[in-house]
Amino acid sequence: MTDPVALAAALIRAESVTPARGAVFDVLEEALAAIGFAVERFVAGEAPDGPVENLLALRGEGGRHLAFAGHVDVVPAGEGWTGSPWSGEVRGGLLYGRGAVDMKGAVAAFVAAADRQRGGTLSLVVTGDEEGPATFGTVALIERMAARGIRPDWCLVGEPTSARTLGDTIKIGRRGSVNIWIEVAGRQGHVAYPHLADNPVPRLVRLLAEIDAVVLDRRNRWFQPSNIEVTDLHVGNPATNVIPASARARLSIRFNDEQRGDALVERIGALAAAHGGTVTARVSGEAFLTEPGPLSDVVSAAIEARVGLVPELSTTGGTSDARFLSRLCPTVEFGLLNATMHQVDEAVAVDDLRALADIYADVIARSVTLA
Amino acid sequence: MTDPVALAAALIRAESVTPARGAVFDVLEEALAAIGFAVERFVAGEAPDGPVENLLALRGEGGRHLAFAGHVDVVPAGEGWTGSPWSGEVRGGLLYGRGAVDMKGAVAAFVAAADRQRGGTLSLVVTGDEEGPATFGTVALIERMAARGIRPDWCLVGEPTSARTLGDTIKIGRRGSVNIWIEVAGRQGHVAYPHLADNPVPRLVRLLAEIDAVVLDRRNRWFQPSNIEVTDLHVGNPATNVIPASARARLSIRFNDEQRGDALVERIGALAAAHGGTVTARVSGEAFLTEPGPLSDVVSAAIEARVGLVPELSTTGGTSDARFLSRLCPTVEFGLLNATMHQVDEAVAVDDLRALADIYADVIARSVTLA
Ligand SMILES: [Zn+2]
Ligand SMILES: [Zn+2]
Repeated sequence: MTDPVALAAALIRAESVTPARGAVFDVLEEALAAIGFAVERFVAGEAPDGPVENLLALRGEGGRHLAFAGHVDVVPAGEGWTGSPWSGEVRGGLLYGRGAVDMKGAVAAFVAAADRQRGGTLSLVVTGDEEGPATFGTVALIERMAARGIRPDWCLVGEPTSARTLGDTIKIGRRGSVNIWIEVAGRQGHVAYPHLADNPVPRLVRLLAEIDAVVLDRRNRWFQPSNIEVTDLHVGNPATNVIPASARARLSIRFNDEQRGDALVERIGALAAAHGGTVTARVSGEAFLTEPGPLSDVVSAAIEARVGLVPELSTTGGTSDARFLSRLCPTVEFGLLNATMHQVDEAVAVDDLRALADIYADVIARSVTLA
Repeated sequence: MTDPVALAAALIRAESVTPARGAVFDVLEEALAAIGFAVERFVAGEAPDGPVENLLALRGEGGRHLAFAGHVDVVPAGEGWTGSPWSGEVRGGLLYGRGAVDMKGAVAAFVAAADRQRGGTLSLVVTGDEEGPATFGTVALIERMAARGIRPDWCLVGEPTSARTLGDTIKIGRRGSVNIWIEVAGRQGHVAYPHLADNPVPRLVRLLAEIDAVVLDRRNRWFQPSNIEVTDLHVGNPATNVIPASARARLSIRFNDEQRGDALVERIGALAAAHGGTVTARVSGEAFLTEPGPLSDVVSAAIEARVGLVPELSTTGGTSDARFLSRLCPTVEFGLLNATMHQVDEAVAVDDLRALADIYADVIARSVTLA
């Protein structure tokens, strides 16, 4: 049987800072081929957001189809690790290494779980670019699935959703995210002659005060209220006696399922225009929600059976590739503890890794027989 | 008789970008000694605001004492001049060169005027650092005058006060100036978890909105209203998903004689404190006013007699060294057209220079006999 700890360690040792290609996929392909998966790897995209390697694996046909989605790229290791970030060594019951929880551990746990199950249809949708721009990662995989006629009934994303103890949290949705750059133009001049100038700063201040007073929505059943943060201000005027020609601000809006990115941009744009400002924007992702149903029930039941916890159904945190997969089918995210993700000395408890493999196996068993 | 055009040209040719020392003072000393002035030159101050050369000249004793104050340092020439900025050449009735109007032309005109007058007491108070930090310029000259027992009854500052035509404006006061740096501190965090952070930007925005609503005072008999401009905003946060740790703004306040620099700093500091902000400040100069009286009457009469204009008594524009001299005695500023000051191809009309010498001569004649 596939050992999730040994496989996770092998994946960690295949260093794969985003965007990942090559060795880490070789390790995964070998493990999947050994347990009967048909594996397809392909490279998508061009610079600057590509090229990116992706892997699609399928086993079985007919019946219910569960897809597991994840990534084998990792963020850079950074400085200050106790050991090597690429050692995959176990010390004191912890498996150390960049990607241990985010999310090579979960990928290994799913492969181990799949090894214990023979019925139903399973697929793995694994990208080498989730931590980067993600332009040619999961999006390209979804296109490839459509081209191959692969249509999962459920999708389980293995991101590290557990907060304090394995199984305490699963995610059934995520907020959307948009960045908006505001510029208010004026007319430069000398502070001693303000009537000859037009200072853009007071107009930007009034605009930002208006934006600060905006209540986009209230907390609803599954989501926090949408939230606007001003993340930057910039004038860049070194001269103390000069009224500047323009003033800028940058907003980050994390929004729930009552908002749409483009509508928010339009709304902020209209407020800005009233103060002579203009906006540019980038919507990183729309909000999405998989209403609690058969899939979340199955995951919750599997968690409760193994660790005795009823997980919280959450929509907090940043964005994930679940925003793309949720367009295909009901999608739930569940994985390891996220405390050390993206940190120095990222590590997963060996016991948690084995427990996760057990839970995933139970999810597979329950979901492929769902009505 | 001293020719103001020839002397102005000689001063221009003695290149003297601020802080000025040496040659330009040699030219001036020679011209003054030739017409009976006792000349004292001294160097004051240390880096970074020094050393600075200054010149004090005195002629006559007893009766009324008129001091002429000015500077022989100039701002850098900059690029794009038609000829050399240090040529002092006359083309088409204009004497060209850096300092032609600000204010070697006026210095030369005053020397020429003094050459036509023998009665009363005259002094020249000339610094080599008016365009720079001005720490060791006119301030040091005033100390030296006190040490020498030199106490003028009136002071005429030769800055280029004329706006459209020679004689249209004299200055009887200046606004004060203070720069205030505001910092509002918060707690950095991820935009997806705003409850774990404290964004300083909304507090800075509310503070700036309050400051924008402040009416310091109204226009009074001699001054415009005091005015606050926000000249810079800065956060400097490159990460679109990070709530910043602090936010900064810089204010420039130009204020009239109803305000004091330190009181303004205290007032802004109190507003800032209410939003968790702190301030640092630098008062460049307090406001001052020489109420219209004998000196401004004399200058106005001399202007009207020569060019047929009644000058406007103004307090507009930036600061000048008159802010120091006005503490000694009634002080008025009058000089050439300021249109080309600090510009490329700075130039003075030869006719204006001769007219200014005539006006200064009339001012001397009238003021030394004043009651
Ligand atoms: Zn991840
Ligand atoms: Zn000047």
